[in-house]
Amino acid sequence: MSIASNEKDEHIVWHQHPIDKTFRATLKKQKPAVLWFTGLSGAGKSTVAGALENRLAQLGYHTYLLDGDNVRHGLCRDLGFSAQDRRENIRRIGELAKLMADAGLIVLTAFISPHRTEREMVRELLPEGEFLEVFVNTTLDVCELRDPKGLYKKARAGEITNFTGIDAEYEVPLQPEIDLPAGDMGIDALVELCLTELSQRGIIDVSSH
Amino acid sequence: MSIASNEKDEHIVWHQHPIDKTFRATLKKQKPAVLWFTGLSGAGKSTVAGALENRLAQLGYHTYLLDGDNVRHGLCRDLGFSAQDRRENIRRIGELAKLMADAGLIVLTAFISPHRTEREMVRELLPEGEFLEVFVNTTLDVCELRDPKGLYKKARAGEITNFTGIDAEYEVPLQPEIDLPAGDMGIDALVELCLTELSQRGIIDVSSH
Repeated sequence: MSIASNEKDEHIVWHQHPIDKTFRATLKKQKPAVLWFTGLSGAGKSTVAGALENRLAQLGYHTYLLDGDNVRHGLCRDLGFSAQDRRENIRRIGELAKLMADAGLIVLTAFISPHRTEREMVRELLPEGEFLEVFVNTTLDVCELRDPKGLYKKARAGEITNFTGIDAEYEVPLQPEIDLPAGDMGIDALVELCLTELSQRGIIDVSSH
Repeated sequence: MSIASNEKDEHIVWHQHPIDKTFRATLKKQKPAVLWFTGLSGAGKSTVAGALENRLAQLGYHTYLLDGDNVRHGLCRDLGFSAQDRRENIRRIGELAKLMADAGLIVLTAFISPHRTEREMVRELLPEGEFLEVFVNTTLDVCELRDPKGLYKKARAGEITNFTGIDAEYEVPLQPEIDLPAGDMGIDALVELCLTELSQRGIIDVSSH
């Protein structure tokens, strides 16, 4: 018997039990979403996103964190740091996050992503309500004081150019879904703030987990 | 209080509860894997992969199917069909599948992927035992007889060139993890064959689901 002769039956089963977003959401008791962390270098994007992911996973949610470590060395390894390549980098991360959200995950991303147009490009890839811009709102002064990787120092010395906040602009989010005062509050409080927002938006339901 | 001052505590928590592959596998009671379906156009890759995904999802496994529909119009929309672009297409799908497997999913992919070197490139991206080459082993005669998209007819008429099986080579897998006689067996039997293989390899445990 050939596959072709079975295709009709198979399609009926398929329509009865579509393996789509709704099916997965029911199976997993969570609504997929993309939490797009944006902010200056040293603002605390990876730290807060990592702590939030940790907390969500402990609550039983299925998450995935995309950051420079797992993207730049793999999917985007062919890209450099020209304006065009940076834009393509954000586009691919957006498409990747979209597919992972389609698979039912709560996706967290941690990239400076300084341009409004690029963040909006990703927002438009996703269904209404699924993209949450999370502004890790730490002042340049605080970031420069922390300077965890010594990059601000290099940028001030002119050893690095085109560095966001120094000689390249960071376009502040105008209406972020979540605005984190990450220069003033501790991590635990910031994570709580995110959980409250996610709960209010129906993405998680802490009572059932 | 700044984030920096909290980082140390956070890192301790992080190490106690690493959100890694093992953690996810335990949470989800499944081992991540990439089932890489390969075969001629019309061999039945998408049909068998779709039916298997349907079955796995009904058993409660968390899966995702990557195919031309959700990849070519998104992540790989900038790529054409030159040899170089086809290779980059497979590379990106491989990196994408790797990240999804890292997120804990059983990933199914359905692409002709005619070249051994490209399939091996993807195999090498993944940890030992996580990449399963699934050869949808249907003869050219049968595929051409089915010709579901009328592409063989066009290729024979010279309206399409560089078409796998006609004027471009399909390099048969030498040691595929799963070899599906998809020209001779019906879909249900092929799906059962896959389930048996996945079970024997410890990727799924039907008894616990």
